[in-house]
Amino acid sequence: MDVSTGPVTDALHRVLAEVSPNTAGELATHIPELADEDPDRLAVALASTEGRCYHAGDAGHRFTLQSLSKPFVYALALTDRDVDEVHEHVGFEPSGEPFNSISLDAAGRPDNPMINAGAIVTSSLVRATDAIERSARILEILSAFAGRDLEMDEKVYASEQDNGDRNHALAHLARASGVLASGVDEAVDAYFRQCSILVDTRDLAVMAATLADEGINPMTGRRVVSEVCARHTLSLMVSCGMYDGAGEWMMRVGIPAKSGVSGGIVAVKPGQFGIGVFSPRLDEKGNSARGVEVLQELSDAYGLHLLRRPTAPAGPLVEEDADSGAHVLRPRGELDFVEVEAVVHDLWSRTTEEGEAQLSLDLSAVTALSVVAHDLLQEALRHLRDAGRAIEVLDPGGVLGDDEE
Amino acid sequence: MDVSTGPVTDALHRVLAEVSPNTAGELATHIPELADEDPDRLAVALASTEGRCYHAGDAGHRFTLQSLSKPFVYALALTDRDVDEVHEHVGFEPSGEPFNSISLDAAGRPDNPMINAGAIVTSSLVRATDAIERSARILEILSAFAGRDLEMDEKVYASEQDNGDRNHALAHLARASGVLASGVDEAVDAYFRQCSILVDTRDLAVMAATLADEGINPMTGRRVVSEVCARHTLSLMVSCGMYDGAGEWMMRVGIPAKSGVSGGIVAVKPGQFGIGVFSPRLDEKGNSARGVEVLQELSDAYGLHLLRRPTAPAGPLVEEDADSGAHVLRPRGELDFVEVEAVVHDLWSRTTEEGEAQLSLDLSAVTALSVVAHDLLQEALRHLRDAGRAIEVLDPGGVLGDDEE
Amino acid sequence: MDVSTGPVTDALHRVLAEVSPNTAGELATHIPELADEDPDRLAVALASTEGRCYHAGDAGHRFTLQSLSKPFVYALALTDRDVDEVHEHVGFEPSGEPFNSISLDAAGRPDNPMINAGAIVTSSLVRATDAIERSARILEILSAFAGRDLEMDEKVYASEQDNGDRNHALAHLARASGVLASGVDEAVDAYFRQCSILVDTRDLAVMAATLADEGINPMTGRRVVSEVCARHTLSLMVSCGMYDGAGEWMMRVGIPAKSGVSGGIVAVKPGQFGIGVFSPRLDEKGNSARGVEVLQELSDAYGLHLLRRPTAPAGPLVEEDADSGAHVLRPRGELDFVEVEAVVHDLWSRTTEEGEAQLSLDLSAVTALSVVAHDLLQEALRHLRDAGRAIEVLDPGGVLGDDEE
Amino acid sequence: MDVSTGPVTDALHRVLAEVSPNTAGELATHIPELADEDPDRLAVALASTEGRCYHAGDAGHRFTLQSLSKPFVYALALTDRDVDEVHEHVGFEPSGEPFNSISLDAAGRPDNPMINAGAIVTSSLVRATDAIERSARILEILSAFAGRDLEMDEKVYASEQDNGDRNHALAHLARASGVLASGVDEAVDAYFRQCSILVDTRDLAVMAATLADEGINPMTGRRVVSEVCARHTLSLMVSCGMYDGAGEWMMRVGIPAKSGVSGGIVAVKPGQFGIGVFSPRLDEKGNSARGVEVLQELSDAYGLHLLRRPTAPAGPLVEEDADSGAHVLRPRGELDFVEVEAVVHDLWSRTTEEGEAQLSLDLSAVTALSVVAHDLLQEALRHLRDAGRAIEVLDPGGVLGDDEE
Repeated sequence: MDVSTGPVTDALHRVLAEVSPNTAGELATHIPELADEDPDRLAVALASTEGRCYHAGDAGHRFTLQSLSKPFVYALALTDRDVDEVHEHVGFEPSGEPFNSISLDAAGRPDNPMINAGAIVTSSLVRATDAIERSARILEILSAFAGRDLEMDEKVYASEQDNGDRNHALAHLARASGVLASGVDEAVDAYFRQCSILVDTRDLAVMAATLADEGINPMTGRRVVSEVCARHTLSLMVSCGMYDGAGEWMMRVGIPAKSGVSGGIVAVKPGQFGIGVFSPRLDEKGNSARGVEVLQELSDAYGLHLLRRPTAPAGPLVEEDADSGAHVLRPRGELDFVEVEAVVHDLWSRTTEEGEAQLSLDLSAVTALSVVAHDLLQEALRHLRDAGRAIEVLDPGGVLGDDEE
Repeated sequence: MDVSTGPVTDALHRVLAEVSPNTAGELATHIPELADEDPDRLAVALASTEGRCYHAGDAGHRFTLQSLSKPFVYALALTDRDVDEVHEHVGFEPSGEPFNSISLDAAGRPDNPMINAGAIVTSSLVRATDAIERSARILEILSAFAGRDLEMDEKVYASEQDNGDRNHALAHLARASGVLASGVDEAVDAYFRQCSILVDTRDLAVMAATLADEGINPMTGRRVVSEVCARHTLSLMVSCGMYDGAGEWMMRVGIPAKSGVSGGIVAVKPGQFGIGVFSPRLDEKGNSARGVEVLQELSDAYGLHLLRRPTAPAGPLVEEDADSGAHVLRPRGELDFVEVEAVVHDLWSRTTEEGEAQLSLDLSAVTALSVVAHDLLQEALRHLRDAGRAIEVLDPGGVLGDDEE
Repeated sequence: MDVSTGPVTDALHRVLAEVSPNTAGELATHIPELADEDPDRLAVALASTEGRCYHAGDAGHRFTLQSLSKPFVYALALTDRDVDEVHEHVGFEPSGEPFNSISLDAAGRPDNPMINAGAIVTSSLVRATDAIERSARILEILSAFAGRDLEMDEKVYASEQDNGDRNHALAHLARASGVLASGVDEAVDAYFRQCSILVDTRDLAVMAATLADEGINPMTGRRVVSEVCARHTLSLMVSCGMYDGAGEWMMRVGIPAKSGVSGGIVAVKPGQFGIGVFSPRLDEKGNSARGVEVLQELSDAYGLHLLRRPTAPAGPLVEEDADSGAHVLRPRGELDFVEVEAVVHDLWSRTTEEGEAQLSLDLSAVTALSVVAHDLLQEALRHLRDAGRAIEVLDPGGVLGDDEE
Repeated sequence: MDVSTGPVTDALHRVLAEVSPNTAGELATHIPELADEDPDRLAVALASTEGRCYHAGDAGHRFTLQSLSKPFVYALALTDRDVDEVHEHVGFEPSGEPFNSISLDAAGRPDNPMINAGAIVTSSLVRATDAIERSARILEILSAFAGRDLEMDEKVYASEQDNGDRNHALAHLARASGVLASGVDEAVDAYFRQCSILVDTRDLAVMAATLADEGINPMTGRRVVSEVCARHTLSLMVSCGMYDGAGEWMMRVGIPAKSGVSGGIVAVKPGQFGIGVFSPRLDEKGNSARGVEVLQELSDAYGLHLLRRPTAPAGPLVEEDADSGAHVLRPRGELDFVEVEAVVHDLWSRTTEEGEAQLSLDLSAVTALSVVAHDLLQEALRHLRDAGRAIEVLDPGGVLGDDEE
C-alpha cells in the first residue's frame, strides 16, 4: 500500500530538501546510458514490514539495478545451495579494493559476493540447466523481492556486453581457479542481465523491506527467501555492502546497505523497514553522493544505527503485594536477556530460602520474549519446581509458549 | 556482583563442556610467555548491563590483553580527540591483511585501529605530555573498563620490547607519513605496555559489558566513555574486530567482538551484556579456536545475532470501545518505527474524516519508545490538533516525554 | 652445417655429463602433454654465427616452444610496428611476479612481453587481417628463425585451449585497458598456436644464433629481422627473460636467455653463437633445472658473461723508427675506445709541438674499428691536418672507411 | 690524468650542448639541501681504463652521493662476505616498485641492494666492530673508488637523520625478518653517512672506471675490489640500477648504470671507461632527466650498447702457400669463439685425412685470445698431435700461453 501523506512522508520530503543542494560527485560513465542520466534526479522511499510504502521525489523514475542486484542474487544462490557450498566458491571478506578489482583470495575465491568477480561467481551458483533458465530465475526472484514483474533494459544490456572485457576476465580467472559453477559466457551473461533490470526507488524500498521482514515481501505477503538467507544477506551487506567504505558506513550510518553505480542505494533496518534512495551522482568510492547523505541524515535523526540500544529498558517490577504479602514479579514489554535476567536471578535465589512468601510471576504486560529470555525463564521455573517451591505464573498472552504451562 | 549458580551459569558451563574436546590450533609463539601458557585452559564469563557477572571455567586465570587492548584504547583516543581528528590519522576499513601487516592506505594512514600499525597510532593520539602520563592514562581507562586496578606483566613487556622490530617499523612508517601524534618510541612503548596488562576472563566480560551499557561500567556504575564513543568502538569491532575474518564472523556470530593472541575474545550484545572467553590455542587467523566456538554456540543457542529480529512484535491494538463507541489505540511494549507506524497511519487518516467517533490513545502498556517512534507519534498528535480533532492521550508512564502533554 | 665431432662437441658432451646426475625439479603439469614428457631427457646445441651447429644428447627430440616463442614473436611485432608503438601496448620492465600473473602497470599495459599477458598483447600486434594470417605469419617467422619449416602439435594446442581460462582472462583485461590490438579470441588463439609449435634443441640453437648474428640466420644466410629488432629482443631477454629470476641470472650466467615450461632454454652470446638446452624438469621458478646448470657451467668455463672484458687488450705500439727518426704508431687488432684513445691522445698532443719528427700511423695490423674508435681517430687526423701537421697513414685493409683517405 | 682538450673532450662538450635546453624534471625535495641545488648545473666526465679523465661542464661542482653510494658499498659487502652470504640477506631481483618501497621477498629479504631497504642491509653486512669502524670503512672504500679522500656533508647528514623515519622503518623490518646484520641504528646511520658523502662529476667517472677496469682504479693503479666483485656489482646495476626503469634503460642505453636523487648517474662500459653525469632535475622515476639524455646520446652516437657486436669480425685467413703447398691458417686480431671456431673446425677435419700437405698455424697477427678461444685452440692442437699429424705453430706474441709449446 502506497501512502502519500503523513509524518513519514513529511520526514522523507524534509530529508530530500536538506540534501538537494548537494551537487557533488559525477555520473558513472563506463556505460553510455548511465552517463546520459539526469544528474539532478533525487528520490527516496521507505517500505515498512507492515506493508506500507512511503516516498518522496522521483520515486517512479526507473534506472537499472547494476550492483544493487548483487545481494538479492546472492540470496537466491544461498537458497539453491547451502551457505557452505556457496562460500567454497566465494569468500566472506571485504576486499579493501575497488569493486571491479580482481581480488581473489589464497583459495582462488573472489573476496566476496559484492565485488564483480564474486557476483559473477554467485550468478553461476544459481541452479539452472542453461543460460535462459538462469536469467529467468534471477529475474523471477528479483521480481519477487520487488513485488512486481520487473523487466530488463535491452540497451543497457547491450552496452554492458560492449564494455564487458573486464567482467569476462574476472569470470575466466574464477573459472581458472575452479570456483565458477557454470560456463564463462553463461555466468557473465546472467550477470549483465541482472545488472540491466529496471527498477524505481519504490521497488528498492520494497526489496529492502523484504530483507527487513526476514525474507517475506511485506507488500505481497509472499516468502521470497528463508529467514536465514535473508539474515546472511544482511550480514554480508554489513561487511561488504558499501564498496571499500564499509567500515566508515558502519560507524556513520550503521545499517546494512548496498549501492549501485546507477545511483541507487538500498538500506535495511531489520524487522522494521527497507529504504531505497536514488541520486545518480557518485562520490569517489562509487556510492551515490546524495544517497549516502540521505541515509546519514535518516540514521542520525531517527537513531537507526544497529548498535544503538533502541530504548532505555523498562526494568522488571518486583513488589511485595500489600494484601497477600506475596512476592510478585511483573516484567513488562519486550524481554531480552537483560530484562529477564533480573527476574531469573530473583527467582533462583529464592529456591533455597526457607519460609518464603508466596511467589507470583505476572507476564500479562510482556509483549514479547527473546530466545535467550524465554530459555532462561523456563529454566528458572523448572528449577523452582524441582526444588519444591510453588510459583503462580500468569501468562494470558501465552508468551511462554507451548512447552510450559 | 558475581553469581556462581543459576541458569546463566549453567548455560556457560554447558557451552564449555561442548567445546572442551576441541584441541585444534596452536599457541602464539612470538613471545615466550605466550608459548608457555597452559594450552588447555578454558574460561567464559558474562556480565550483564544490570551489573551481574556469571562465569565458568578458569575465569580467574590471568593473561595479558595483547590486541584486546585495542578497542578500549581506541575509545580513549576518541574521548581525547573527536572522531574526525582520530580518523585523520587512522582509517576505518578492514585491511584484508594480517594484523601485523603494514597496510597504509592512500593517505598514509594505517587501515584501521585494530591492526598493529593503527593501534600504535591510536595510542599516540591519547592526550599526554610524556610517555609516563600516556601509559598511566591508558592503564587508568583500561582499569575503569574492568572495574578494578589492573597491573602490567613486566616479563611480557620486556619480551614485547625484545621482539619489537616490526612494531617499531610500523611506528616509523606512520611517522614518515605524518599520522603519528607522538614520538616513535613513546608510541611503541605505550602500545607494548597496554598489550602487557594482565586481566582475567571475568575482567573481559566487564570491559565488554561497559561497551554494551553505552560506556557505563555496570559493576561500578561509573561512566568510562561517552555513549557515542562506545558506539563508535562497537562499530569498529563489527568491521575490523576479528582480524581478517570479520565478514565470516558477522555471518556466523553477528555481534561485535575483538580477539587477542593471548587467547581471549571480548564480545558485546549492545544494551544487554558483555562476554569474555579465554582459550589460548589460536586458529590460523590468530583467533582463539575454542573462543570462536563458544561464541558461535552462544549466538546460535540464544539468537544473539545483531540482524536477528529480537522477537515477533506485538501489534498495536486498535479497538472500538463497546460502551462509548470511542476509537481506542492501545500499543504495548517497546515501540520502534514499525510498531508505531500503524498507530500513526491510523491517526493521520482520521484528521480529514468527518463525524468521527472520539479518539483515544492509551500508552499505559508502552514500556519504551524509540527516537523515530517518539518523533512520529508527536508529529501525528500535533497534526491532529492542528486539524482540530480532539484526542485523549493516556500516558501514565510519561513515555512521550516533557515536550508533549 | 651440423658438426658431430671436435672440441666444441666434446665440450658439450662434457657439460651434459656433469649435469646428468641432477634430478631436481618437477615436470610442468598444467597441460597433460607436458606432464607426459620423459623427465630424463637432456640435450644441448650450439650454433655459431659462422653457420655451424654442434650438439650433444637428445638434440633431435621435439617439444613445444611454450614461452620460448615469446622473444621471437616480439621481434616480429617490432618488425611490424616501431618500438614506441609496441611499447605503448606493453611495458619494458620485469614484473617481480610469476609469468602468469596479471601485472598490468599504471597505464594498463602488461609489465613486459615475456609474461603471458604481455605475450598475448605482443601477438595481437603482429600485422594481420585475420586470425589465420596472424598465426601463419607467426609460424613463418619462427620457421625463418629456425631455418626450417616448423609445425604445430595439435594435441598440445587443444590442451592449451582446454586450460586457457587464465590466458583468456589476461587478454580480456588487456582489451579492457585498451592495449590489445586485436580481438580477444584471435590474440589468445595466436598465442596458443605459437606455444604449440614443435622444435628440437638444435632448432633452439639456430633461433638463438639468429639473434646473435643481429637478425641473420647463419645457417640459411637469410635476414629474419633487422639488427635493431634483434638487439631490442636481446635487451628484453636480459631484463625479463628468466621469469622472476632475471637478476640472479645476470649475476650468475650473464648472457641474454629465455626459458619455457616445456624445459627448453635459449641463450645468446651476441656476435658469437646461440645455445639451446633441453631438460624438462623445472625448478621452482619454472626454468629447466638442468638447463640452468648447463648454462652456468658453460658461462663459467668459457667466460661468456657479457660484463667480462673479453681479453686483455693489446696496447698500441708507439715507437721511434730507428732509421728515419719518424714517430710511428702501430695499433693492432680490434680497436675500441680505450685502444684508440691512447693513439688519439698522442696524435692530439703533437699538433702544437714545434720541430716534430715525421708522424706515421700504421693501421695494417688493425682488424676492426668500433664506431667510437673510428670517429675519434678521424677526428684526430682531421685536427692534425687543420693544424698543418703532416701525417702518413697506412691503411691497407681500409679500416678507416671511405670518408677518409 | 685530466685531459682538457681533444676529440673526447669535444664530444663531451657537444653532448652537453645538445641536452642543455632540456629543463624538464624537478629537484628532489625530501631534503632541504637537495631542494636548494642550482637546477641548471650540468656536467659530464669520462675516465678511461687507461687512466685519463675527460670532462665538460661543472665537473668540479660537489654534491652528495645519495643512492650512487649503493653499488660501491655493495662491492665492499661482497668483499667482506661471499656472494652467497650477502644474498642470504638481500635479493637479486628488480622490485618493480619505487626505491623507498618496502619490497621484502618471500624470504623476508629486501628485493635487491639498490632499493633503500636493501642498501641498509648491505651496509649492515660491511665487517665492523662498531658504528664508527663501519662508516670509516665505507668512507675508505668510496675514497679508493674515487682515487682521493672524500668527505661527508654534515648538513645533509643531519637532514637525512631528521627525515629518516622511513629508512628506520625499513631497517626494523629487515631486522624483524632476520636479515639485518647489525643493530638498526648502526645500519641506518652508516647508510645516511654514505648518502652524505660529497663527490664531483669527475669522481663519479673515476669510480665508474674502477668498475670498468675490473676493480682497479685506473688513476691510482690500486686494486679496490676483486674482479668478481666488480662484475657482480655491474650485473646488479644492469638488473636494478635505474630504479624501476631498468628494462627500458637496457633497451635504450644498454650499459650498467646507477642514479641518485642528487642528480648524478654513473655508467660503465666494461673494459673501456666509466662515465659520470650530473644534472639535478629528476624525471618521474627519480633519475636525472638530462643525465639520462646524455647517456642515451653517447650510447647512440658511439655504439656503447652491451649487446651491440662491437665490430664486424675479421675472418681467419686460410690459404695454400704457393711455394711450399703448405696449408696455412692466419687468424688476426682478437679471437673469441666464433673467430677461432673456423680454425679449429679446419684443423679438426684434417686429422683423419691421408696424404695431407703440411699444416701451419700462424698466430703472429693475433692480438688476444678469449678463454673459450684459447681452450678450443689448445684442444684442437692436442687432438692433431694425438692423431699423429704434424703442425707448425708460429706464436711470436705468446698468445697461447705457457701451457703449450
